[in-house]
Amino acid sequence: MKLSARNVLKGTIDQVQKGQTTAHVRINVGGTIVTASITNEAVDELKLKQGQTAYAVIKSSDVMVGIDE
Amino acid sequence: MKLSARNVLKGTIDQVQKGQTTAHVRINVGGTIVTASITNEAVDELKLKQGQTAYAVIKSSDVMVGIDE
Amino acid sequence: MKLSARNVLKGTIDQVQKGQTTAHVRINVGGTIVTASITNEAVDELKLKQGQTAYAVIKSSDVMVGIDE
Amino acid sequence: MKLSARNVLKGTIDQVQKGQTTAHVRINVGGTIVTASITNEAVDELKLKQGQTAYAVIKSSDVMVGIDE
Amino acid sequence: MKLSARNVLKGTIDQVQKGQTTAHVRINVGGTIVTASITNEAVDELKLKQGQTAYAVIKSSDVMVGIDE
Amino acid sequence: MKLSARNVLKGTIDQVQKGQTTAHVRINVGGTIVTASITNEAVDELKLKQGQTAYAVIKSSDVMVGIDE
Repeated sequence: MKLSARNVLKGTIDQVQKGQTTAHVRINVGGTIVTASITNEAVDELKLKQGQTAYAVIKSSDVMVGIDE
Repeated sequence: MKLSARNVLKGTIDQVQKGQTTAHVRINVGGTIVTASITNEAVDELKLKQGQTAYAVIKSSDVMVGIDE
Repeated sequence: MKLSARNVLKGTIDQVQKGQTTAHVRINVGGTIVTASITNEAVDELKLKQGQTAYAVIKSSDVMVGIDE
Repeated sequence: MKLSARNVLKGTIDQVQKGQTTAHVRINVGGTIVTASITNEAVDELKLKQGQTAYAVIKSSDVMVGIDE
Repeated sequence: MKLSARNVLKGTIDQVQKGQTTAHVRINVGGTIVTASITNEAVDELKLKQGQTAYAVIKSSDVMVGIDE
Repeated sequence: MKLSARNVLKGTIDQVQKGQTTAHVRINVGGTIVTASITNEAVDELKLKQGQTAYAVIKSSDVMVGIDE
């Protein structure tokens, strides 16, 4: 599927941590860790595991901008 | 302010494009463009402009994970 | 790409309305209209147009539940 | 309450699964399952249970569009 | 409709500013202005106007926490 | 850091409740409780605890508007 989301950042899964319903997946994108909070169900369905190539996908309307004060 | 958001990606503003109420800000994060859709008001208040150092800030619950099929 | 997003609703594009930076895309999903607010850029890149098969993709953490009072 | 959210999809609750703080509620909307990730607190307050009529409510800015590649 | 969203803040509409597709609605909640970015369509359907009683409705997973540094 | 998010509501932390991966933080903003659903990791890093001054930070595109029917 091709998506409207503007931000698709390629990286490698660094860690998958499952909770009771929600999992945290850490993706190393060029040296920066991007953390995704997704359902356990998605982790199982996509068979996400450490070392795997993956993309952090983010809709533009969910990105804020910050500057140093 | 220090934020709970897990993802704070440092970069340089590549482009600021204002619409009638909503602006698109493109931040170059280590060679990858991250697009933020924010209010014109925020662009004015933060005086965002091309070439400026800025951060793309994203809450973990807004990050999805994708894999190649 | 295969996505972690739990909600992928197949339908037909009913209308594409572009603003200055933000577009509204209405997808007919089994008789119900689902409206997506996305960037003009995404509309252009995906060449979205009326009559086309498309999916409304929604992360579970963006879905609320309502009941009749 | 009448809401600005454009997407209010009527269905029947198929499953309620509570975790430690976050619950997943699956709503059958005309044969398609829509999954909502909400707080346990909301599940308790709304007394959500299988078989109940409920609505999946989604803001337009949280809907992405996908197309087949 | 009764909603799972944990945050329903009552106030008075201070300003409605429509763009080409997206509107900004400012709600005065006990002296603090809360800004909502919603579709023009929603503004029209709810007939939102200055001085009207309204609620800012926010899902918990869309609230971040900040502290002074 | 100075943020593009339009909504920064100052208050006092009323309760911090950690789950297995996701925590709920309740902030008292002028008598109204605002609930944030954030990662346990953020709670630990910011050392969030009851009685502390904190801000509920919300992007405008995540605010809906409701009116009485």
